[in-house]
Amino acid sequence: MERLDAIFSPKSVAVLGASSTPGKVGHDIFANILRGEYTGTLYPVNPKARSILCVRCYESITEIPDPVDMAMIILPPKLALQAVRDCVEKGVRGIVIVSAGFKEVGGEGAQIETEIADVCRRADIPLVGPNCLGVINPHPDVRLNASFSTHLPEYGNISFISQSGALCTAVLDFAMSRGYGFSKFISIGNKADVDEFDLLQYYHKDPETRVMMVYMEELRMRENFVDKLKHITSDHRPTPILVIKSGKTASGAKAASSHTGSLAGSEAVYNAIFDEAGIMRVDTVDELFDYAGVFSANRLPAGNRTAIITNAGGPGIIATDMTEVSGLKLAQFSDETDAALREHLPPTANFSNPVDVIGDAPSKRYEHALDAVIKDHGVDCVLMILTPQSMTDAIGTAKAIVKTYKNTDKPIICCFMGVVDVSAGVQYLQEHHVPVYSFPENAARAMGRLYEATRWLTRTILPQYDLTFDRERARQIVDECLKSGKTVLGEHDGARLLQCYGFPTLPVEIVGSEQEAGQAADKMGYPVVMKVVSPQILHKMDAKAVVLNIETTQEAQQAYTDIVSNAKAYLPDAEIQGVMVTKMAPKGEEVILGVNRHPGFGHLLMFGFGGIYVELFKNVSFRLAPIGRNNARRMIRSVRGYQILTGYRGKARADIETIEKLLVGLSGLVTDCPQVKELDINPLLVHEEGKGATVADIIITLEQE
Amino acid sequence: MERLDAIFSPKSVAVLGASSTPGKVGHDIFANILRGEYTGTLYPVNPKARSILCVRCYESITEIPDPVDMAMIILPPKLALQAVRDCVEKGVRGIVIVSAGFKEVGGEGAQIETEIADVCRRADIPLVGPNCLGVINPHPDVRLNASFSTHLPEYGNISFISQSGALCTAVLDFAMSRGYGFSKFISIGNKADVDEFDLLQYYHKDPETRVMMVYMEELRMRENFVDKLKHITSDHRPTPILVIKSGKTASGAKAASSHTGSLAGSEAVYNAIFDEAGIMRVDTVDELFDYAGVFSANRLPAGNRTAIITNAGGPGIIATDMTEVSGLKLAQFSDETDAALREHLPPTANFSNPVDVIGDAPSKRYEHALDAVIKDHGVDCVLMILTPQSMTDAIGTAKAIVKTYKNTDKPIICCFMGVVDVSAGVQYLQEHHVPVYSFPENAARAMGRLYEATRWLTRTILPQYDLTFDRERARQIVDECLKSGKTVLGEHDGARLLQCYGFPTLPVEIVGSEQEAGQAADKMGYPVVMKVVSPQILHKMDAKAVVLNIETTQEAQQAYTDIVSNAKAYLPDAEIQGVMVTKMAPKGEEVILGVNRHPGFGHLLMFGFGGIYVELFKNVSFRLAPIGRNNARRMIRSVRGYQILTGYRGKARADIETIEKLLVGLSGLVTDCPQVKELDINPLLVHEEGKGATVADIIITLEQE
Repeated sequence: MERLDAIFSPKSVAVLGASSTPGKVGHDIFANILRGEYTGTLYPVNPKARSILCVRCYESITEIPDPVDMAMIILPPKLALQAVRDCVEKGVRGIVIVSAGFKEVGGEGAQIETEIADVCRRADIPLVGPNCLGVINPHPDVRLNASFSTHLPEYGNISFISQSGALCTAVLDFAMSRGYGFSKFISIGNKADVDEFDLLQYYHKDPETRVMMVYMEELRMRENFVDKLKHITSDHRPTPILVIKSGKTASGAKAASSHTGSLAGSEAVYNAIFDEAGIMRVDTVDELFDYAGVFSANRLPAGNRTAIITNAGGPGIIATDMTEVSGLKLAQFSDETDAALREHLPPTANFSNPVDVIGDAPSKRYEHALDAVIKDHGVDCVLMILTPQSMTDAIGTAKAIVKTYKNTDKPIICCFMGVVDVSAGVQYLQEHHVPVYSFPENAARAMGRLYEATRWLTRTILPQYDLTFDRERARQIVDECLKSGKTVLGEHDGARLLQCYGFPTLPVEIVGSEQEAGQAADKMGYPVVMKVVSPQILHKMDAKAVVLNIETTQEAQQAYTDIVSNAKAYLPDAEIQGVMVTKMAPKGEEVILGVNRHPGFGHLLMFGFGGIYVELFKNVSFRLAPIGRNNARRMIRSVRGYQILTGYRGKARADIETIEKLLVGLSGLVTDCPQVKELDINPLLVHEEGKGATVADIIITLEQE
Repeated sequence: MERLDAIFSPKSVAVLGASSTPGKVGHDIFANILRGEYTGTLYPVNPKARSILCVRCYESITEIPDPVDMAMIILPPKLALQAVRDCVEKGVRGIVIVSAGFKEVGGEGAQIETEIADVCRRADIPLVGPNCLGVINPHPDVRLNASFSTHLPEYGNISFISQSGALCTAVLDFAMSRGYGFSKFISIGNKADVDEFDLLQYYHKDPETRVMMVYMEELRMRENFVDKLKHITSDHRPTPILVIKSGKTASGAKAASSHTGSLAGSEAVYNAIFDEAGIMRVDTVDELFDYAGVFSANRLPAGNRTAIITNAGGPGIIATDMTEVSGLKLAQFSDETDAALREHLPPTANFSNPVDVIGDAPSKRYEHALDAVIKDHGVDCVLMILTPQSMTDAIGTAKAIVKTYKNTDKPIICCFMGVVDVSAGVQYLQEHHVPVYSFPENAARAMGRLYEATRWLTRTILPQYDLTFDRERARQIVDECLKSGKTVLGEHDGARLLQCYGFPTLPVEIVGSEQEAGQAADKMGYPVVMKVVSPQILHKMDAKAVVLNIETTQEAQQAYTDIVSNAKAYLPDAEIQGVMVTKMAPKGEEVILGVNRHPGFGHLLMFGFGGIYVELFKNVSFRLAPIGRNNARRMIRSVRGYQILTGYRGKARADIETIEKLLVGLSGLVTDCPQVKELDINPLLVHEEGKGATVADIIITLEQE
């Protein structure tokens, strides 16, 4: 027995605040439960009414003579608080508060919400809402429509979670018009207790749910959050999660001091979570349902080799296009398939993929074509396109498809074009759970998402790297720096810290005289770079306090003198702590590794290509720390232009494995030293395969959490 | 009287090949015209029938005693040819051939199609088809449904052209289900004569057409094609054109020798045409109708400042997101607006944009809010969102919106969420031509397209540059090269050619001795680059036959000796024509200018950023030559990362004007010398504003057309 069963499948429901006045929420929701033919027992609670819709009314929930599983509260905040206390006394097992006026209005409302949440938590009663639109379970054994919707939706295997109540009704209507059914449907409002995360876990265990749709505005961080989400989409019974996350553009405006910080808005956090957890993000409700449709059929293709069967050329071309855009490819038919097609189709047909059965195709011809291609071992999935022409037999073709569908494990997706003429066929397909769309581009796009799920489930998982970090030393360096008030670490301290996690930094020495400069340079080998060390001089280039490409002892000595005098000339009051001598970095592909600590979500790790273009193109990937090898690998691979690292245009392959290890190292660093607030390694120079990488520039900002 | 009026608004129609057998095309189309209550006179022609659907039948069109405007031919190729001859004899003014079996099957069918087209051309009779699905004009004065569709669609102001017949029925059904009406609707099949271009021009003159939708597979080039299309979308009565162009991915695979060639597939040609002509390309039929809906209302916003009014937070957030993604921005309300909102809305409402009138908003509250914001001079357009909640009055709100809509010029777009509950309101809005959508993201996206049209119509048009080209010399260089069999021009001849069009190339000299090398280098000034000139040595770097960064006379002399001896060692049989001395290019932003001659469309000009990343990202823009300053400007601006040129991150602004002039020069070059098959200037180094640019590398391929 799951904790949330009391919300979704209660044996008895009390409506506190039920009203006899139509149009009032307390009336309408009560009426919707009653008229939806709820299979349990329903009790109205209202001290002022004898009965509501001729159902006997109780003065208080405590007066109900039978046990009550779930209480729906439709009362203003103060009364709601008392009602919750009564519910605890009564021993209910779940509470839904529909009314508004709580946290979302602030002040006393917010206070009462906190109090109510406390009361529920102490009594271990799950609380949904407040400020929500209720809960629906259309299962024939339950038929609970505790919502604003006047109709109980069809029963199906899609479960829905909405943070916004407003969207619920529209989604229900939209679903009805497109023939979708639901397993569970809930609006969670202010999320005083139960949130998306609880529900995703609950739905995942629910045998009636095959795909989850979420409309979220924000997500609340939990412990091992991403791992648990990943578990939902990846375990022995993976359940796809489709998400519309709004609030996209709002967060972009924040100013940030680091490179990484400027890219790591809350959008980046969400995308990192979604990417890592295998959650599919979509933009529109149309897409949500398009994709839910294919997942609800509960079949994944083994690969991306797609066969298309059509009775018209144009839609076949559109589908082919969209197929390729969506990551699928056209299957190559075997000789047997070709022979079978030639045997059954007229000579004017097109036998290669996309198969054109010609405008006058009767259902039998579709059937033959489908049977031929579905048997082909080189075909992973089939797209059936039917356009209504004068001879077209939509219902006959639908029946033929369903017949074959039952005898195969391969996904078949249909596109029956047109709404009116083909409706009987569409309905037949829907009744038999074969996904069907009105236009080929939508069908092909949905198939692409199915294949994406296949790729997710069959992703390579490599053993972790066996890396040793000097965690003690790292903690010590951070503590020392903070103690001495140093919050911005540059090449010197930054390098010391990064070395603890295996970062190959360049030799750096701070020297105080010409002689020392020459010796240091000699020791590290030429060419070297020298620059002033002064907390006051930020733009060292402007101060002419940087000398590149130093090749000899003499040059190094001269550079010392020049740098010090230039720095003094530039800012006479500057404290000159010395001159830094660094070995010049060997050439390599410029990449950026970064960290940004996000309030609420922890450390966000970033990978991207260096250089000005990439900054403009925002071509970077993110993960929340901690990560291991596999996420590091996917971070690197998901950046556009990844091919540059794999040996593009005759270049040598770069040492990608080293980048992976360093990302894992970075994850170790921020886990051990959470005081790292921002970090940019820009650039990290990645050398040829086997030759490692070099940290060329570092900036780290520390801050106590 | 337009030529195509005979097709769309004939006073009389003869159906050649009309049949009495239901299910046959010749029967169904005749029946559809008849039952659609065509307002003209309809004559069936069939030598074997006395009457069809009780309409008196004629043996041949020539026997019809009255004049016939339009003939529909539904006969196999050979009979169709005879029928066309009869039509000419009869003096019809337009012909539509529905039957298939012509060019699309090849052989005799293709031959007959050519013959038919010739006959029609000689008689100056417009011919639609063959292999098409017919023509529809729902105007109440015409009511012509000469198509496969059993229903005559609603009358409206959207005109449609489809190359694919299959799509037509689906589009008609889809339109019906979404409440869209059409002005003209045609399927053009094989386009033996009449094509998209004729129809776009015809529709543009049609007062009943406000927006055109085209589904095309390929476009046929015509003289001044792009200019004429631009005229349609830009003249005193601009008509938006929305296009679905399929065949996107098919063309990408072709191998090409140049950089530009590899990027300039036929997709690039189409996008260049669409971009230049102001045609909007869309991906899906959903989008086609979403956008046609707003354009059909025939109102453009003056700017992009959008007000959103909603009765629920969630959809408001979604709309805000999509608004910003679509290039719009949230309007800032004036104090008057704020005051008006505060006067009429409850205190819990949100008065700033997006305005939240709260879930329980009656229609009056919507009306007040709309009236307040529509008057605001800082508001260009309004998005009204209604989500059905228990108090919601969809029809009342729709009426309030229509009332305000009639009193303003500003676009108002509605989103009435849900299909069932709000249908009365939706219908009322549709009847009054106020665009209405089911979800906020679609509404906002459509509004974004409206604003895109505003931007197109108000685009800056600057006077042309006054450039002088040495056309004579250029033609002479090209002719000489071709005469001597030289088809690949490098730095030397390429530079000579480009100089005729104002390209700043580097001094180049070919020398034959150490002495000459030293003198040439002295003359042009250091540093210089030297490399071998040998037709056999393609990889000069590999041959160690390139020396960079030469600083003195002595170095230049030494370089000559080294290059010649290295070249000989590398390929003893190589013909060494000399050593090329070039001044080293000054630093600048690397961009690429390119040309690719496209069979059928002529020269395609390309602009993009240089470097490996950009090649991977395919971040380039195209135009068909010839272009002037304004298109050059838009080419440059439309490339992602354009900011790099405008002074990004403290860099100096680059000399963009010079790039514009050079693009215009390139256009001049290919116009004067059409033998240029491919051209890459990669990179062109663009210096600081006012300092011009330098051609750093050139490769030009010539080929007689």
